[in-house]
This record gives sequence, structure tokens and C-alpha cells, in this order.
Amino acid sequence: MQSIGTVSPSSMHFAEPLALKSGAQIGGYTLVYETYGTLNANRSNAVLVCHALNASHHVAGTYADQPKSTGWWDNMVGPGKPVDTDRFFVIGVNNLGSCFGSTGPMHDNPATGKPYGASFPLVTVEDWVAAQARLADALGIEQFAAVMGGSLGGMQALAWSMMYPERLRHCVVIASTPKLSAQNIAFNDVARQAILTDPEYHGGDFYAHGVVPKNGLKVARMVGHITYLSNDDMAEKFGRKLRNAAENNEYKFDFGVDFEIESYLRYQGDKFSEYFDANTYLLITKALDYFDPARDFNGDLARALAGTRAEFFLASFTTDWRFSPERSREIVEALLCNRRRVTYAEIDAPHGHDAFLLEDPRYMNMVRAYYQRIWDQMPTVRA
Amino acid sequence: MQSIGTVSPSSMHFAEPLALKSGAQIGGYTLVYETYGTLNANRSNAVLVCHALNASHHVAGTYADQPKSTGWWDNMVGPGKPVDTDRFFVIGVNNLGSCFGSTGPMHDNPATGKPYGASFPLVTVEDWVAAQARLADALGIEQFAAVMGGSLGGMQALAWSMMYPERLRHCVVIASTPKLSAQNIAFNDVARQAILTDPEYHGGDFYAHGVVPKNGLKVARMVGHITYLSNDDMAEKFGRKLRNAAENNEYKFDFGVDFEIESYLRYQGDKFSEYFDANTYLLITKALDYFDPARDFNGDLARALAGTRAEFFLASFTTDWRFSPERSREIVEALLCNRRRVTYAEIDAPHGHDAFLLEDPRYMNMVRAYYQRIWDQMPTVRA
Repeated sequence: MQSIGTVSPSSMHFAEPLALKSGAQIGGYTLVYETYGTLNANRSNAVLVCHALNASHHVAGTYADQPKSTGWWDNMVGPGKPVDTDRFFVIGVNNLGSCFGSTGPMHDNPATGKPYGASFPLVTVEDWVAAQARLADALGIEQFAAVMGGSLGGMQALAWSMMYPERLRHCVVIASTPKLSAQNIAFNDVARQAILTDPEYHGGDFYAHGVVPKNGLKVARMVGHITYLSNDDMAEKFGRKLRNAAENNEYKFDFGVDFEIESYLRYQGDKFSEYFDANTYLLITKALDYFDPARDFNGDLARALAGTRAEFFLASFTTDWRFSPERSREIVEALLCNRRRVTYAEIDAPHGHDAFLLEDPRYMNMVRAYYQRIWDQMPTVRA
Repeated sequence: MQSIGTVSPSSMHFAEPLALKSGAQIGGYTLVYETYGTLNANRSNAVLVCHALNASHHVAGTYADQPKSTGWWDNMVGPGKPVDTDRFFVIGVNNLGSCFGSTGPMHDNPATGKPYGASFPLVTVEDWVAAQARLADALGIEQFAAVMGGSLGGMQALAWSMMYPERLRHCVVIASTPKLSAQNIAFNDVARQAILTDPEYHGGDFYAHGVVPKNGLKVARMVGHITYLSNDDMAEKFGRKLRNAAENNEYKFDFGVDFEIESYLRYQGDKFSEYFDANTYLLITKALDYFDPARDFNGDLARALAGTRAEFFLASFTTDWRFSPERSREIVEALLCNRRRVTYAEIDAPHGHDAFLLEDPRYMNMVRAYYQRIWDQMPTVRA
């Protein structure tokens, strides 16, 4: 198995405004995307990979002259990998409002000539899917072999199955949930409060001030990061190890770093605050909070999924306490109520929510086997 | 059962410096405390109640003309209550470095004439216990019938049993742990980063600037609060209920409050930031992080507890994911290795870590029964 090699992003402009679930609309906008593999003659081998909070269209491969720029799901997507780019034409799209090239809060609002900032309209999972569908139209893809995602990406895949039931044959939903819990929302709101109350946030107009609310973003990322890891995994990797264990192995008795876990989280928080946009963080956490397809059906998820036509693959991880296996099982049960074909894997893995991004032979083999099935079911080439 | 009624705090000054675990020392200092009930003739009925992060010496009763000032463990301590003040002489002490009257960061450092601020020496659980022991000396109490506490208070009770084995007959440790996990430390460090990076913190000297790092304290409290509640309890109490459910029950599509849980946590965070001292929050979270009595015994908790002489009562709560039952069981097992007498109750309660403060008949009855035993074992009055 090898990486897909050097890749480069494309972009596409959409002049027609997009009506959003909030009632607002976005005028002209650009989506940045990448593709891997080759679209076949009958355009039946396309796979859309949807990204989570802090990822992007850059799913696999590396950028020329940037050896460390490997895509976020490179272990999953590539030649000979579970989602085999020798067979499938894989598309990654940066979502609207994100900060990796597609139109977002840091771009100028055509109506004002200034960055949107906090005035960028709040977009929902369903809005992202509508924008992705337009991109699919433009690329000439009527129907995806599969739409796939983990975490927030899984919500997008699920929304695809409801909004455009005829446009995907398979729906792959990993480490996801049909809706956030009060605890999930609470953690998101802690992150938002940290950003919103950072004086450098300037009500979202920090671009004009030449600053970034780094402290708020750092705290937001630290608290998020904790929820991505399992308690056991943190105990195993960090435990109570002191950063100066090799020196005197003593407590420092100040507010600097004592424990390795502090050092790790602060460092990751600092790094994140250097590349991620604060307004994007705010709006993506709101998209997470708002996702609740059963809401229009009096809380009945089975009814919400009644119009779906795809076959489903779901996977969850035993130590994921952010979106626990129980939440995936809710989706599975609601699909079975509708007599959908569902494959569900509950994987005993120690890495918490992050497990969906990590190498695990059982997990990878399950996805590989499922894509073999997708391949075996491929429509024969039309004349 | 009735409340203990009107109470009032006392204070005691200690002129002799206290040597701290860090190597630093505190010069003259004052401890504020309250007592309930009457010390008997042979001084054998005293119970020390140790407080957790955000509590104080004000354990039970109310202050005159402040009807809402009920003590934090009023359901536990009082006439006819599980810790019956008709039998026991109960003492609550505000710990050094706290912000409810005992010497702390907001008080003047005699050496400089200015508030200690961030220069207040970091105190440990063991330092608190040493200071409490001096107070016991001053009150003429050689041996406590019991030393008792929940969470961080339980750590103090445990430290008493190791540091002064002959000075307590019973040790009551509720919802506690022999040491924080990496995840516990991580949450504490998020809270500290929120405070330390708030520009209003001013390196700990915010008193001189006439401000308070309210935003940092608010975020710190919000993240802490989440860890005190169980996932199920939050789901039950708040779920995804919108704050405007009674009006249009629609998402607001802005960064204000959508969900009840957001409203609740922000409100609690705001309230907390109005009365709690930021430097105190920092130093108490460090005391939590540092507590690890097995550390001096190569991680062997049984050896750390080998010198204890008390009988023990421990309780934990099934949905407490901050200090889970597993952590209490570690203490129980280490005590049993030493052939100590141990009573352990694992209580099936939905309220997470906060359960130790809440009314629950099974919990209250267990504590009541244990205090009956303490009473039955009271030494007979010496001539």
C-alpha cells in the first residue's frame, strides 16, 4: 500500500445564491475540493468524503514540497487502501464557513467589501450537503457510490441519505450521532465562551485589528481535545508523568507545566490557534449543536429516516465517550425500523473518539470489506 | 429533622509560621471556622468536616439575616441528621489559600504590604491538614471521632489518616480518589489556562487594578461544572430543550443562548465569577493535581496507607465520572491489604460527582448508620 502521492486542490465558484436553513442566504461562493482516482465512464464510482470540525478537503496525499502535509484520512483513502482510489473516484470538499479555502468568515462579504467575520451566516449540516450536491452537479455526478464521513462528517453522510435519497447507493457513518447530547453542547459552549470573551476576538472583526483570539482558541481546542481522547488512553499515554521526569521528577509548585498531559494539550492548543479561524470554530460548533434530523418528526428518528434509500455502514468505538456506541445504535435501530440494509461494527478500540482517524486493523478491514461490497454491487457500464 | 439554625464563624490567628510541602512557608495566618454542637467532657465527640474546591467552613446552618446562606452540607450535618450535632461537635475550617476568610491570595503579604496574588505559596492537601491539626490543638482536640470529606475533602480525610494516625478514630472519604487521572488534570489545566490568559488576571495582581478575571473564571467554572454532572443527569434535566421552547421553539442562528444547558452553565459561571477568587481557583486545582500519597512509595498505595490506624467509611456514586467508583475501590483494596476495617458503599445514583452533596436516602442512611457505629464505639468518659 502506498500513499496517493502528490495532490493539489481545485476550486469552483457558484454564482447562484444558496438559501440556508436559517432563512439567510449566501451570495456567490467558492468551494475548494480535491479528487483522487478516476471517474469511470458511467460516473458510478464517485465517493464523497465529508470532513469533521477541524479537517478539510485535503483527505489524502501530500502537497508538492510539503512533505508533512499528508491528508487527514490518508490511511483510509488511497491506492489499495480501504477506500481504494484504484477503483473509486474520491472527492473531498471544504465546507462553507470553514477556513481552508472555501468561502468563510475571513473572506470579504461582497455586500460590504469587508470580511464577514461573525456576520457570516450560520450554516447547518444540511446547508453543507446542499452545497456539496451543487458541486456534484457541476462535476457531473448524479449518484455517489457512497457518501462517507466520521463524527460531524458522518452527520453529513446521514443528511445526504435523507435529503437526496436517490443520489447515493451507500451511506458510511462512522463515530457519529443523530444529535448532540446536553453534555456535548455544554462542551461546545465552553469552547465558544472562551473565544467570544477573548478581547482579541473583537466581536468577530479581529481581522481588521490584525490580531487573532489565540487564547480563546487555545482553551477551546484543549477542552475539545480532551473529549476526543478516552480516559484510559490518556491514562496509558500520559498518566501522571511529569514533564521533568528525566531531571528531578519533582512538582514545580507554580502554574507552569508540571504534567506531560498539560504540556501536550497546551502545545496542541497553541498550534491549533495558529492556523484555525475563530469564527469558523464558532459556526461549526453551532452546526454540530443544531444537527437533529428527528426534530422535524417530533423526535422520531425512524420517521426522519423513512425516505432513505441507501444501504448503510455504521461503525462506533467502545471507548468513544463523545459519540458513544449507543448513539450509533440509535441510528441503526431507526434504520432497521425502516427495513434498510445496515452493517454495523462496534469496534473495541482504546482511542476514544479519535479512533475513527487512527489505524486499527479490525476497523480498517471492516471498511475495506464494505467497500468491496460497494464495488461488487457497482452498476454495469451502460452502453 | 431541622436545620441547625443560625450560626456564625470564628477565626483564629496562628503566629508561628507553617512550613509547606513546597519548601516555602506561610508566616502568620488566620483560619476561619465554624462549630456545631457541643464538645463533650472528654473531648471525644469532635468531627472535622473538610471542604472541596468551592466550599468553605460554612458547612451547616444559616447566617443571621441571610436566609439563603445555608451551609453546603446542611442536609448531612445538624440535629437528627446523619452527622448528628446533638451527639457530635462538628468543625468546618476554611482552608489556607481559599477565599472565604482564611488567609489567602487576596490578603496582604506581611512581607510586602500588598496582596499575595499569584505569589501566595502553593499549598497542598497535606499542608491544609497540618494547618487543621494546629487548629485542633488550639481547640483542645487530641483525637477526632471522625475526619470526613467529599471529593477534595475526602483527600484531606485520607491525608489525616496517614499524617496523624492516632488523631482520628474514623475516616470518612466520599466520592474521592487517591490521585487525579490525566483526564482530571487536563480539565483542571483548561480551567487554569482560561484564568491565566484572561487579560484581567494581570499576572495575579488584578486586585491592584480593581478588576476580576471574570471571563476566565466563568469558563473555568463551566468546564468544571460539566465534570460534576453525569451525562444521563444532564440529558434528563436539560436534554436539547431550547430556552425559548415556550415561545417559537426555534434555533436562533446566532452565538447567544439556544439551549437550556447553555443558559444554565453560563449563569452558574457568571455567578461563580462574582464571588470566587481567581488565584484561589488556580491554587486549589494544583492541590488537587498534586495529591498522590502513593507517590512517595513508588506508586504503592497500600504501603502509603500502612501506617493508618482509623476505621474507614468510603462511598462512591455509580454515575460519577470525575472520581468514579473504581477510584474509591483502589483505596478500599489498599486498606484491606493493610487489614484495616473498611465499610464501602457504592451508591447507584444518577447525579454524577455532585451526588455527594445531594439528598439520597440510601446514601444518607449509610452515613447515618456509620455515625451510629462511631457513636456506639465512643470511648467511655474518663474520670
